[in-house]
Amino acid sequence: MGNGQAAGRRPGPTQTRALVLTAARQLFSDLGYDRTTIRGIAREAGVDPALVHHFFGRKEDVFLRALEIPFQPADLIARVVGAGPRNSLAQRLLRVFLSLWEDPASRLRMQALIRSATTSQQGADLLRQFLTATVLSRIADALGVPRLRITLVGSQLVGIAIVRYVLGVEPLASASQEEIVKLVAPSIQRYLDS
Amino acid sequence: MGNGQAAGRRPGPTQTRALVLTAARQLFSDLGYDRTTIRGIAREAGVDPALVHHFFGRKEDVFLRALEIPFQPADLIARVVGAGPRNSLAQRLLRVFLSLWEDPASRLRMQALIRSATTSQQGADLLRQFLTATVLSRIADALGVPRLRITLVGSQLVGIAIVRYVLGVEPLASASQEEIVKLVAPSIQRYLDS
Repeated sequence: MGNGQAAGRRPGPTQTRALVLTAARQLFSDLGYDRTTIRGIAREAGVDPALVHHFFGRKEDVFLRALEIPFQPADLIARVVGAGPRNSLAQRLLRVFLSLWEDPASRLRMQALIRSATTSQQGADLLRQFLTATVLSRIADALGVPRLRITLVGSQLVGIAIVRYVLGVEPLASASQEEIVKLVAPSIQRYLDS
Repeated sequence: MGNGQAAGRRPGPTQTRALVLTAARQLFSDLGYDRTTIRGIAREAGVDPALVHHFFGRKEDVFLRALEIPFQPADLIARVVGAGPRNSLAQRLLRVFLSLWEDPASRLRMQALIRSATTSQQGADLLRQFLTATVLSRIADALGVPRLRITLVGSQLVGIAIVRYVLGVEPLASASQEEIVKLVAPSIQRYLDS
């Protein structure tokens, strides 16, 4: 249609990427992270598995792209876990988490994830898969802390994000990051020190 | 239309209530709780202030009805604050909060509040007004605890609601209430013991 390409059934790279990501969202939501494969996504999208791999890399990369996660969980976790002593883990975790929300671009994306999770079952499924498969399991493994306690750490972080950034409840909305770290880090550290 | 009433401009009681509640949501969201009056709501709805009072009672009652809050904050807070020693306050608060979410009817309503708050500015404004005007200030006054700490208590509760009930992240989704109380109460009690 006006460009040099022949009109045919084969979609261009941009469309193919979009098809793959839509198929990925569907399968990750329906089957869960563990039971979803690159091959299954390729079949659902009607493309070759090698193409999925070529465009996006490994399964986790497809997942992060499908959800538009604005950071690499593995990198962040390595930064938090490996960057200092165990007894100041909660402080580092809080600082990294707050800095993601202070950055306007990643804040918008995380608000969109929360909105999608509270308004659609697929959104809730995907956010739960994300937290479980790429965040909680990694942290639990790295620290040897029971998963229930890790989900409680997550609940404190999610709650701060909602009350401070989404609802804007004062005085938490205007508190400095350091004030929050000082008050909240001991509560989180309690969950991590089993 | 087929009933005995004359067709006219005066709406029936059901319509009047709906008009009043819509006007109330608009004003509470635009002006905030403190600056909204029964008189202002009546003017916005085009009805007599005495009628608003007759249908709904005081301003706080209008507010709770407009937001369809499934409990009376003042009663719940009295139940938590007055029902035992200060050092087990967090336990009582958690038990009351979890029981609201375990009840299917109030859970649905609270999920709807969270959904509305994450998807629209009016929803976020109303939930913030609700938390600030009818919950936080009451608790802060009753306990003499700085408001920042009360918002942190709220953040831990909201976070548990999202991770356990909205997202269903395991193992928190299946943990018993007593397990949660045992692990979380000390974190909340820390915020209350300044």
